[in-house]
Amino acid sequence: MRILEEKILHDGLALGTEIVKVDSFLNHQIDVHFLRLLGEEFHRLFADTHPTKILTMESSGIACALATAQSFGDLPLVFAKKTVPNTMVDDVYAAEVKSFTKGTISRAVVAKKFLTPQDAVLIIDDFLAHGEAATGMCDIVRQSGAQLLGMGAVIEKEFQGGGSRLREAGVRLESLAVIRCIEDGVIHFR
Amino acid sequence: MRILEEKILHDGLALGTEIVKVDSFLNHQIDVHFLRLLGEEFHRLFADTHPTKILTMESSGIACALATAQSFGDLPLVFAKKTVPNTMVDDVYAAEVKSFTKGTISRAVVAKKFLTPQDAVLIIDDFLAHGEAATGMCDIVRQSGAQLLGMGAVIEKEFQGGGSRLREAGVRLESLAVIRCIEDGVIHFR
Repeated sequence: MRILEEKILHDGLALGTEIVKVDSFLNHQIDVHFLRLLGEEFHRLFADTHPTKILTMESSGIACALATAQSFGDLPLVFAKKTVPNTMVDDVYAAEVKSFTKGTISRAVVAKKFLTPQDAVLIIDDFLAHGEAATGMCDIVRQSGAQLLGMGAVIEKEFQGGGSRLREAGVRLESLAVIRCIEDGVIHFR
Repeated sequence: MRILEEKILHDGLALGTEIVKVDSFLNHQIDVHFLRLLGEEFHRLFADTHPTKILTMESSGIACALATAQSFGDLPLVFAKKTVPNTMVDDVYAAEVKSFTKGTISRAVVAKKFLTPQDAVLIIDDFLAHGEAATGMCDIVRQSGAQLLGMGAVIEKEFQGGGSRLREAGVRLESLAVIRCIEDGVIHFR
Protein backbone atom coordinates (compact mmCIF):
# COMPACT_ATOMS: atom_id res chain seq x y z
CA MET A 1 0.00 0.00 0.00
CA ARG A 2 1.89 2.96 -1.37
CA ILE A 3 0.46 5.67 0.89
CA LEU A 4 1.28 3.54 3.94
CA GLU A 5 4.89 3.11 2.84
CA GLU A 6 5.12 6.87 2.27
CA LYS A 7 3.62 7.52 5.70
CA ILE A 8 6.08 5.12 7.36
CA LEU A 9 8.99 6.86 5.61
CA HIS A 10 7.67 10.32 6.43
CA ASP A 11 6.36 9.86 9.99
CA GLY A 12 8.02 6.63 11.13
CA LEU A 13 11.38 6.26 12.78
CA ALA A 14 13.87 3.42 12.44
CA LEU A 15 15.62 2.45 15.68
CA GLY A 16 18.66 0.28 15.08
CA THR A 17 18.08 -2.54 12.61
CA GLU A 18 15.01 -4.10 14.24
CA ILE A 19 12.48 -1.51 15.34
CA VAL A 20 10.21 0.83 13.41
CA LYS A 21 8.37 3.38 15.50
CA VAL A 22 5.05 4.45 14.04
CA ASP A 23 3.63 5.85 17.23
CA SER A 24 2.64 9.14 15.61
CA PHE A 25 -0.12 7.51 13.55
CA LEU A 26 -0.63 3.86 14.46
CA ASN A 27 0.14 2.73 17.99
CA HIS A 28 0.23 5.60 20.45
CA GLN A 29 -1.31 8.49 18.57
CA ILE A 30 -3.73 7.28 15.92
CA ASP A 31 -4.44 9.05 12.65
CA VAL A 32 -8.14 8.24 12.62
CA HIS A 33 -8.74 9.21 9.01
CA PHE A 34 -5.75 7.22 7.81
CA LEU A 35 -6.90 4.25 9.86
CA ARG A 36 -10.13 4.14 7.82
CA LEU A 37 -8.05 3.71 4.67
CA LEU A 38 -6.19 0.78 6.24
CA GLY A 39 -9.49 -0.83 7.19
CA GLU A 40 -10.83 -0.35 3.65
CA GLU A 41 -7.68 -1.88 2.18
CA PHE A 42 -8.04 -4.99 4.35
CA HIS A 43 -11.64 -5.22 3.19
CA ARG A 44 -10.52 -5.01 -0.44
CA LEU A 45 -7.82 -7.68 0.08
CA PHE A 46 -10.16 -10.09 1.84
CA ALA A 47 -13.29 -9.18 -0.15
CA ASP A 48 -13.65 -12.80 -1.32
CA THR A 49 -13.94 -14.04 2.27
CA HIS A 50 -16.93 -13.80 4.54
CA PRO A 51 -15.72 -13.35 8.09
CA THR A 52 -18.18 -13.46 10.94
CA LYS A 53 -15.66 -11.99 13.39
CA ILE A 54 -12.45 -9.99 13.45
CA LEU A 55 -9.87 -11.08 16.03
CA THR A 56 -6.95 -9.02 17.29
CA MET A 57 -4.66 -8.73 20.31
CA GLU A 58 -4.79 -5.92 22.83
CA SER A 59 -3.84 -3.25 22.79
CA SER A 60 -2.29 -1.71 19.71
CA GLY A 61 -4.17 -4.04 17.36
CA ILE A 62 -7.57 -2.82 18.51
CA ALA A 63 -7.75 0.35 16.43
CA CYS A 64 -6.83 -1.18 13.06
CA ALA A 65 -8.98 -4.22 13.78
CA LEU A 66 -11.93 -1.97 14.59
CA ALA A 67 -11.48 0.00 11.36
CA THR A 68 -11.44 -3.32 9.50
CA ALA A 69 -14.54 -4.57 11.30
CA GLN A 70 -16.27 -1.33 10.26
CA SER A 71 -15.23 -1.73 6.63
CA PHE A 72 -16.79 -5.22 6.63
CA GLY A 73 -20.14 -3.72 7.63
CA ASP A 74 -19.68 -3.55 11.41
CA LEU A 75 -18.64 -7.09 12.19
CA PRO A 76 -18.16 -8.05 15.84
CA LEU A 77 -14.58 -7.57 16.99
CA VAL A 78 -12.90 -9.73 19.63
CA PHE A 79 -9.62 -8.73 21.18
CA ALA A 80 -7.50 -11.29 22.95
CA LYS A 81 -6.50 -10.17 26.43
CA LYS A 82 -2.93 -10.48 27.56
CA THR A 83 -3.63 -11.13 31.22
CA VAL A 84 -6.51 -12.70 33.08
CA PRO A 85 -8.22 -9.95 35.03
CA ASN A 86 -10.35 -11.12 37.91
CA THR A 87 -13.52 -10.20 36.00
CA MET A 88 -12.71 -13.00 33.57
CA VAL A 89 -14.14 -16.02 35.26
CA ASP A 90 -15.28 -17.89 32.18
CA ASP A 91 -13.53 -20.63 30.38
CA VAL A 92 -10.97 -19.28 27.97
CA TYR A 93 -8.85 -20.36 25.05
CA ALA A 94 -5.26 -19.47 25.89
CA ALA A 95 -1.90 -19.22 24.14
CA GLU A 96 1.54 -18.13 25.31
CA VAL A 97 2.83 -15.01 23.57
CA LYS A 98 6.38 -13.71 23.70
CA SER A 99 6.98 -10.03 23.08
CA PHE A 100 10.38 -9.28 21.54
CA THR A 101 9.81 -5.54 21.97
CA LYS A 102 8.97 -5.74 25.65
CA GLY A 103 11.02 -8.84 26.47
CA THR A 104 8.10 -10.49 28.21
CA ILE A 105 6.09 -13.68 27.94
CA SER A 106 2.38 -13.30 28.52
CA ARG A 107 -0.73 -15.38 28.18
CA ALA A 108 -3.30 -14.32 25.59
CA VAL A 109 -6.83 -15.42 26.29
CA VAL A 110 -10.20 -15.29 24.56
CA ALA A 111 -13.38 -16.27 26.35
CA LYS A 112 -14.74 -19.44 24.79
CA LYS A 113 -18.19 -17.96 24.31
CA PHE A 114 -16.84 -15.41 21.79
CA LEU A 115 -15.32 -17.89 19.30
CA THR A 116 -17.29 -20.92 18.19
CA PRO A 117 -17.03 -23.54 15.44
CA GLN A 118 -19.66 -21.52 13.55
CA ASP A 119 -17.30 -18.53 13.25
CA ALA A 120 -15.10 -17.62 10.29
CA VAL A 121 -12.31 -15.47 11.65
CA LEU A 122 -10.07 -12.84 10.12
CA ILE A 123 -7.11 -11.88 12.32
CA ILE A 124 -5.90 -8.27 12.10
CA ASP A 125 -2.86 -6.79 13.85
CA ASP A 126 -0.71 -3.70 13.57
CA PHE A 127 2.67 -5.44 13.37
CA LEU A 128 3.86 -8.83 12.24
CA ALA A 129 7.45 -9.33 13.35
CA HIS A 130 8.57 -12.68 14.76
CA GLY A 131 4.95 -13.80 14.55
CA GLU A 132 4.49 -14.79 18.18
CA ALA A 133 1.24 -12.87 18.66
CA ALA A 134 -0.07 -14.04 15.29
CA THR A 135 0.79 -17.66 16.04
CA GLY A 136 -0.92 -17.35 19.42
CA MET A 137 -4.08 -15.98 17.81
CA CYS A 138 -4.05 -18.71 15.12
CA ASP A 139 -3.72 -21.26 17.91
CA ILE A 140 -6.69 -19.76 19.74
CA VAL A 141 -8.80 -19.89 16.56
CA ARG A 142 -7.78 -23.52 16.04
CA GLN A 143 -8.73 -24.40 19.63
CA SER A 144 -12.16 -22.83 19.12
CA GLY A 145 -12.91 -24.90 16.04
CA ALA A 146 -13.65 -21.72 14.07
CA GLN A 147 -12.49 -21.36 10.47
CA LEU A 148 -9.36 -19.23 10.08
CA LEU A 149 -9.77 -17.16 6.91
CA GLY A 150 -6.42 -15.41 7.12
CA MET A 151 -4.49 -12.64 8.73
CA GLY A 152 -3.96 -9.02 7.81
CA ALA A 153 -0.98 -7.13 9.19
CA VAL A 154 -0.53 -3.41 8.73
CA ILE A 155 3.28 -3.66 8.82
CA GLU A 156 5.20 -6.88 8.29
CA LYS A 157 8.89 -6.90 9.20
CA GLU A 158 9.93 -9.59 6.72
CA PHE A 159 13.46 -9.94 8.15
CA GLN A 160 12.07 -11.17 11.47
CA GLY A 161 10.55 -14.22 9.82
CA GLY A 162 7.04 -14.32 11.27
CA GLY A 163 5.44 -13.84 7.85
CA SER A 164 7.22 -16.74 6.18
CA ARG A 165 6.49 -19.02 9.13
CA LEU A 166 2.78 -18.21 8.90
CA ARG A 167 2.69 -18.65 5.11
CA GLU A 168 4.53 -21.99 5.42
CA ALA A 169 1.92 -23.04 7.96
CA GLY A 170 -0.72 -22.38 5.30
CA VAL A 171 -2.10 -19.13 6.69
CA ARG A 172 -3.26 -16.64 4.07
CA LEU A 173 -1.40 -13.49 5.01
CA GLU A 174 -1.89 -10.01 3.56
CA SER A 175 0.45 -7.27 4.77
CA LEU A 176 -0.16 -3.66 3.80
CA ALA A 177 3.53 -2.76 3.98
CA VAL A 178 6.42 -5.23 4.05
CA ILE A 179 9.75 -4.02 5.41
CA ARG A 180 12.62 -5.99 3.91
CA CYS A 181 15.32 -4.54 6.14
CA ILE A 182 16.50 -1.51 8.05
CA GLU A 183 20.02 -0.35 7.20
CA ASP A 184 21.78 2.72 8.57
CA GLY A 185 18.48 4.15 9.76
CA VAL A 186 16.87 3.69 6.34
CA ILE A 187 13.74 1.56 5.93
CA HIS A 188 13.67 -0.61 2.79
CA PHE A 189 10.38 -2.06 1.58
CA ARG A 190 9.95 -5.27 -0.39
CA MET B 1 -28.59 6.69 27.35
CA ARG B 2 -31.56 4.39 27.43
CA ILE B 3 -30.40 1.83 24.84
CA LEU B 4 -27.10 1.48 26.69
CA GLU B 5 -28.88 0.80 29.99
CA GLU B 6 -31.03 -1.79 28.24
CA LYS B 7 -27.97 -3.38 26.69
CA ILE B 8 -26.21 -3.53 30.07
CA LEU B 9 -29.27 -5.17 31.63
CA HIS B 10 -29.69 -7.58 28.73
CA ASP B 11 -26.08 -8.51 27.92
CA GLY B 12 -24.16 -7.44 31.03
CA LEU B 13 -23.53 -9.45 34.15
CA ALA B 14 -23.29 -8.25 37.74
CA LEU B 15 -20.59 -9.95 39.80
CA GLY B 16 -21.01 -9.36 43.51
CA THR B 17 -21.76 -5.75 44.40
CA GLU B 18 -18.83 -4.10 42.61
CA ILE B 19 -18.28 -5.50 39.14
CA VAL B 20 -20.32 -5.25 35.96
CA LYS B 21 -19.12 -7.41 33.11
CA VAL B 22 -19.90 -6.03 29.67
CA ASP B 23 -17.36 -8.08 27.81
CA SER B 24 -19.90 -9.27 25.25
CA PHE B 25 -20.17 -5.82 23.66
CA LEU B 26 -17.67 -3.36 25.13
CA ASN B 27 -14.37 -4.68 26.44
CA HIS B 28 -13.55 -8.09 25.08
CA GLN B 29 -15.97 -8.62 22.26
CA ILE B 30 -17.04 -5.29 20.75
CA ASP B 31 -20.40 -4.62 19.15
CA VAL B 32 -19.03 -2.40 16.40
CA HIS B 33 -22.37 -1.01 15.31
CA PHE B 34 -23.40 -0.20 18.87
CA LEU B 35 -20.03 1.44 19.46
CA ARG B 36 -20.82 3.95 16.70
CA LEU B 37 -23.93 5.00 18.64
CA LEU B 38 -21.85 5.57 21.78
CA GLY B 39 -19.41 7.72 19.80
CA GLU B 40 -22.25 9.75 18.32
CA GLU B 41 -23.75 10.27 21.77
CA PHE B 42 -20.45 11.62 23.13
CA HIS B 43 -20.33 13.95 20.14
CA ARG B 44 -23.84 15.19 20.92
CA LEU B 45 -23.02 15.72 24.60
CA PHE B 46 -19.80 17.61 23.88
CA ALA B 47 -21.01 19.32 20.68
CA ASP B 48 -20.36 22.76 22.22
CA THR B 49 -16.67 21.94 22.69
CA HIS B 50 -13.99 21.89 20.05
CA PRO B 51 -11.47 19.21 20.92
CA THR B 52 -8.28 18.86 18.93
CA LYS B 53 -7.54 15.44 20.38
CA ILE B 54 -9.25 12.53 22.11
CA LEU B 55 -7.29 10.89 24.93
CA THR B 56 -7.93 7.46 26.39
CA MET B 57 -6.09 4.70 28.28
CA GLU B 58 -5.11 1.37 26.77
CA SER B 59 -6.55 -1.00 26.21
CA SER B 60 -10.29 -1.20 26.70
CA GLY B 61 -10.76 2.56 26.23
CA ILE B 62 -9.37 2.50 22.70
CA ALA B 63 -12.47 1.31 20.87
CA CYS B 64 -14.96 3.78 22.38
CA ALA B 65 -12.43 6.60 22.10
CA LEU B 66 -11.88 5.79 18.44
CA ALA B 67 -15.61 5.79 17.76
CA THR B 68 -15.80 9.19 19.45
CA ALA B 69 -12.85 10.55 17.47
CA GLN B 70 -14.64 9.43 14.31
CA SER B 71 -17.87 11.14 15.33
CA PHE B 72 -15.93 14.39 15.78
CA GLY B 73 -14.77 14.22 12.16
CA ASP B 74 -11.75 11.94 12.55
CA LEU B 75 -9.84 13.71 15.29
CA PRO B 76 -6.43 12.33 16.27
CA LEU B 77 -6.66 9.84 19.12
CA VAL B 78 -3.93 9.36 21.72
CA PHE B 79 -3.97 6.40 24.05
CA ALA B 80 -1.92 6.48 27.23
CA LYS B 81 0.29 3.43 27.57
CA LYS B 82 0.39 1.52 30.82
CA THR B 83 4.01 0.42 30.63
CA VAL B 84 7.08 1.87 29.05
CA PRO B 85 8.07 -0.41 26.21
CA ASN B 86 11.65 -0.10 25.06
CA THR B 87 10.51 1.53 21.82
CA MET B 88 9.37 4.52 23.88
CA VAL B 89 12.54 6.51 24.24
CA ASP B 90 11.01 9.98 24.16
CA ASP B 91 10.17 12.18 27.04
CA VAL B 92 6.81 11.31 28.47
CA TYR B 93 4.16 12.69 30.78
CA ALA B 94 3.50 10.07 33.41
CA ALA B 95 0.95 9.32 36.13
CA GLU B 96 0.50 6.42 38.53
CA VAL B 97 -2.69 4.45 38.02
CA LYS B 98 -4.14 1.89 40.38
CA SER B 99 -6.44 -0.77 38.98
CA PHE B 100 -9.02 -1.99 41.46
CA THR B 101 -10.09 -4.72 39.04
CA LYS B 102 -6.63 -6.14 38.53
CA GLY B 103 -5.17 -5.17 41.90
CA THR B 104 -2.14 -3.55 40.28
CA ILE B 105 -0.42 -0.18 40.20
CA SER B 106 0.93 0.84 36.86
CA ARG B 107 2.42 3.88 35.24
CA ALA B 108 0.45 5.54 32.44
CA VAL B 109 2.54 7.52 29.99
CA VAL B 110 1.94 9.78 27.00
CA ALA B 111 4.81 10.95 24.81
CA LYS B 112 5.21 14.69 25.25
CA LYS B 113 5.12 15.34 21.52
CA PHE B 114 1.49 14.16 21.31
CA LEU B 115 0.00 16.60 23.84
CA THR B 116 0.90 20.28 23.68
CA PRO B 117 -0.40 23.52 25.19
CA GLN B 118 -2.16 24.14 21.85
CA ASP B 119 -4.36 21.07 22.34
CA ALA B 120 -7.90 20.96 23.70
CA VAL B 121 -8.48 17.46 25.02
CA LEU B 122 -11.56 15.33 25.54
CA ILE B 123 -10.91 12.19 27.62
CA ILE B 124 -12.99 9.11 26.80
CA ASP B 125 -12.98 5.82 28.68
CA ASP B 126 -15.14 2.74 28.92
CA PHE B 127 -15.52 2.67 32.72
CA LEU B 128 -15.37 5.25 35.46
CA ALA B 129 -15.20 3.49 38.82
CA HIS B 130 -12.86 4.79 41.53
CA GLY B 131 -11.54 7.27 39.00
CA GLU B 132 -7.88 6.33 39.19
CA ALA B 133 -7.38 6.06 35.42
CA ALA B 134 -9.40 9.23 34.84
CA THR B 135 -7.43 11.16 37.45
CA GLY B 136 -4.19 9.94 35.92
CA MET B 137 -5.27 11.12 32.47
CA CYS B 138 -6.40 14.50 33.83
CA ASP B 139 -3.00 14.82 35.49
CA ILE B 140 -1.24 14.05 32.20
CA VAL B 141 -3.33 16.68 30.39
CA ARG B 142 -2.48 19.22 33.12
CA GLN B 143 1.24 18.43 32.85
CA SER B 144 1.09 19.01 29.10
CA GLY B 145 -0.46 22.45 29.44
CA ALA B 146 -3.30 21.43 27.13
CA GLN B 147 -6.87 22.50 27.85
CA LEU B 148 -9.02 19.78 29.44
CA LEU B 149 -12.51 20.04 27.96
CA GLY B 150 -14.02 17.21 29.94
CA MET B 151 -14.39 13.49 30.20
CA GLY B 152 -16.88 11.06 28.77
CA ALA B 153 -17.37 7.65 30.38
CA VAL B 154 -19.49 4.93 28.83
CA ILE B 155 -20.37 3.43 32.22
CA GLU B 156 -19.98 5.25 35.53
CA LYS B 157 -20.23 3.21 38.72
CA GLU B 158 -21.48 6.02 40.95
CA PHE B 159 -21.08 4.03 44.17
CA GLN B 160 -17.32 3.83 43.69
CA GLY B 161 -16.99 7.60 43.91
CA GLY B 162 -14.73 8.43 40.99
CA GLY B 163 -17.40 10.52 39.30
CA SER B 164 -18.08 12.77 42.28
CA ARG B 165 -14.38 13.27 42.89
CA LEU B 166 -13.87 14.38 39.30
CA ARG B 167 -16.91 16.69 39.35
CA GLU B 168 -15.72 18.20 42.66
CA ALA B 169 -12.36 18.82 41.02
CA GLY B 170 -14.19 20.84 38.36
CA VAL B 171 -14.01 18.31 35.54
CA ARG B 172 -16.99 18.32 33.21
CA LEU B 173 -18.09 14.71 33.19
CA GLU B 174 -20.67 13.08 30.95
CA SER B 175 -21.49 9.41 31.57
CA LEU B 176 -23.71 7.50 29.18
CA ALA B 177 -24.99 5.15 31.88
CA VAL B 178 -24.68 5.68 35.63
CA ILE B 179 -24.97 2.65 37.88
CA ARG B 180 -26.20 3.65 41.33
CA CYS B 181 -25.67 0.25 42.93
CA ILE B 182 -25.67 -3.49 42.42
CA GLU B 183 -27.90 -5.42 44.84
CA ASP B 184 -28.52 -9.16 44.78
CA GLY B 185 -27.21 -9.39 41.26
CA VAL B 186 -29.48 -6.60 40.03
CA ILE B 187 -28.03 -3.47 38.45
CA HIS B 188 -29.78 -0.23 39.43
CA PHE B 189 -29.27 2.90 37.34
CA ARG B 190 -29.45 6.48 38.60
